[in-house]
Amino acid sequence: MAKLTEANLVTYSPNLKVLDCTLRDGGLVNNFYFTDEFVKDLYNAAIKAGIDYMEFGYKASTDIFNESDFGKWKFCKDDDIRAIVGDNDTNLKISVMADVGRTNHKRDIINRADSPIDLIRVATYINTVPAAIEIIEDAKNKGYEVSCNIMAVSKVNNEDLMNGLKEIANSSVDVIYMVDSFGSYYPEQIAKLADQYVEIGDKYKKNIGIHAHNNQQLAFANTITSLRHGANFLDSTVSGMGRGAGNCFTESLLGFLRNPRYNLVPIMDFVQKHMLQLKKDGNVWGYDIPYLLTGVLNAHPSSAIRFIKENRTDYSKYYQELLDDTL
Amino acid sequence: MAKLTEANLVTYSPNLKVLDCTLRDGGLVNNFYFTDEFVKDLYNAAIKAGIDYMEFGYKASTDIFNESDFGKWKFCKDDDIRAIVGDNDTNLKISVMADVGRTNHKRDIINRADSPIDLIRVATYINTVPAAIEIIEDAKNKGYEVSCNIMAVSKVNNEDLMNGLKEIANSSVDVIYMVDSFGSYYPEQIAKLADQYVEIGDKYKKNIGIHAHNNQQLAFANTITSLRHGANFLDSTVSGMGRGAGNCFTESLLGFLRNPRYNLVPIMDFVQKHMLQLKKDGNVWGYDIPYLLTGVLNAHPSSAIRFIKENRTDYSKYYQELLDDTL
Repeated sequence: MAKLTEANLVTYSPNLKVLDCTLRDGGLVNNFYFTDEFVKDLYNAAIKAGIDYMEFGYKASTDIFNESDFGKWKFCKDDDIRAIVGDNDTNLKISVMADVGRTNHKRDIINRADSPIDLIRVATYINTVPAAIEIIEDAKNKGYEVSCNIMAVSKVNNEDLMNGLKEIANSSVDVIYMVDSFGSYYPEQIAKLADQYVEIGDKYKKNIGIHAHNNQQLAFANTITSLRHGANFLDSTVSGMGRGAGNCFTESLLGFLRNPRYNLVPIMDFVQKHMLQLKKDGNVWGYDIPYLLTGVLNAHPSSAIRFIKENRTDYSKYYQELLDDTL
Repeated sequence: MAKLTEANLVTYSPNLKVLDCTLRDGGLVNNFYFTDEFVKDLYNAAIKAGIDYMEFGYKASTDIFNESDFGKWKFCKDDDIRAIVGDNDTNLKISVMADVGRTNHKRDIINRADSPIDLIRVATYINTVPAAIEIIEDAKNKGYEVSCNIMAVSKVNNEDLMNGLKEIANSSVDVIYMVDSFGSYYPEQIAKLADQYVEIGDKYKKNIGIHAHNNQQLAFANTITSLRHGANFLDSTVSGMGRGAGNCFTESLLGFLRNPRYNLVPIMDFVQKHMLQLKKDGNVWGYDIPYLLTGVLNAHPSSAIRFIKENRTDYSKYYQELLDDTL
């Protein structure tokens, strides 16, 4: 996990990995109702684009969520993935996200040898780190690559965060992700955070990743800043599709990266064929003033998502509501 | 012109100036056809928001451009400005842009004592620096604050740029602007560029400014990166309105700045009243794939603007056209 700062705008870091999570974070926009054609085309585009990992969705438990309320990528059953990827005899690896408390990992995560999935991404809050480690070790024992995303760290005091990070770093996890859940970090802050994560990553031989949100139109800037500070797993979504303000655009990231294995053209073709229609169909995501405000105030975007859904435009009134709720 | 790096995310830099150029860069979207109500409301919002300078448009010569082809802010006659601002008995200063070769400065820029304008912004390419200096000195003699924007520097070799910069720094100019005309700079590059400009600015006692474009959704990131590297004149436009991909959003910038004199609320109210309608009326600007591509390739956005106007979505074909034209 060498620091990547030796890479510059002409060279590249060979151990860099791009993880496209359009289906997973984008699924939060449309309740995971993607057509099979969409998913197959995205899979093929990701392969052609040289993307390293494609995340198909959540491994949510059907004990907790009603299957009829969501598209199938909320649950990512192995058979559903297999129907898209067959044996996935490609260089593209497959990931799913397992939320602590929302996944039945013992039952639903089978041995990797029998699954099309390569990487289990365990998502946790700081107060559920022990439960996250249980899933990490279970998935590791089953043969998977495993990452851990500690969410909402912008709300966590630094001492708790460092303690949690060390706990996770002491586990069998392969990758630890910085997650800017509220899109509240500025590049100078994400640089400092990356330095802290990378220091621990170097010590414990873990990769460090970055999952950014675009509330302040800083998702791409924060992603490449993290890269320069030693993160080497970079999350992105096509057209930035994701909850609220969305994510770092896969298009921007591939336009930036210098490794010749990455190719922007298949992603642009995918945007032309699918993403424009998705927007026309009324799926709404991306930068807007309410998300800027929750980002600036380091607040959860849920009220901003409601504001947009209700077609409100009284930004100042919303800002006052937000201040009342936040400060 | 002390470096501002001592400011952090809690403190602020007292000598920082925000220049809103919505009418000027935004005028390139709608040929400067803003209603008087729009301009008056923007003026009042800028005052309430604590913005330091409001740019009304270009001081273009009626010898070169046909007045019937443009709204009045292409020409910024003193009487037209005065009709909006009266004696402008406020803390908000008024600027106009004078393009080298497109302005009759001797005739149209009168003495500051008789004008509502405070700051003349001279825009030049590197090969017209001597002509720019002529306008700078003329405007200085007439009593104005004067800045110089060297455009398209991402196409200029560094030796020529440094020589041009020193020529300008030797003039009576007050502010020298970095201009990312093609939205092609990454934050790490703009940081290095800012260091070079600020070194010269420190030596010659000049302020340094930044005017960013949003082709890669980096306008805000590049603006605050420049600030941290010592730039203290920051350009922005409401909702990022500007040619092609547009500019750094005034909303984002005011959300970031910690100086209590800045206030985001009047700008949000202005967006609600005017900017949403402007978009509904068919005025198109802001991030889109074609602008990403011209940004990545350090190319002029004109072909991308045409692509968008023609409602094309064949991004890959456009990319090939652009590669043919660019490389």
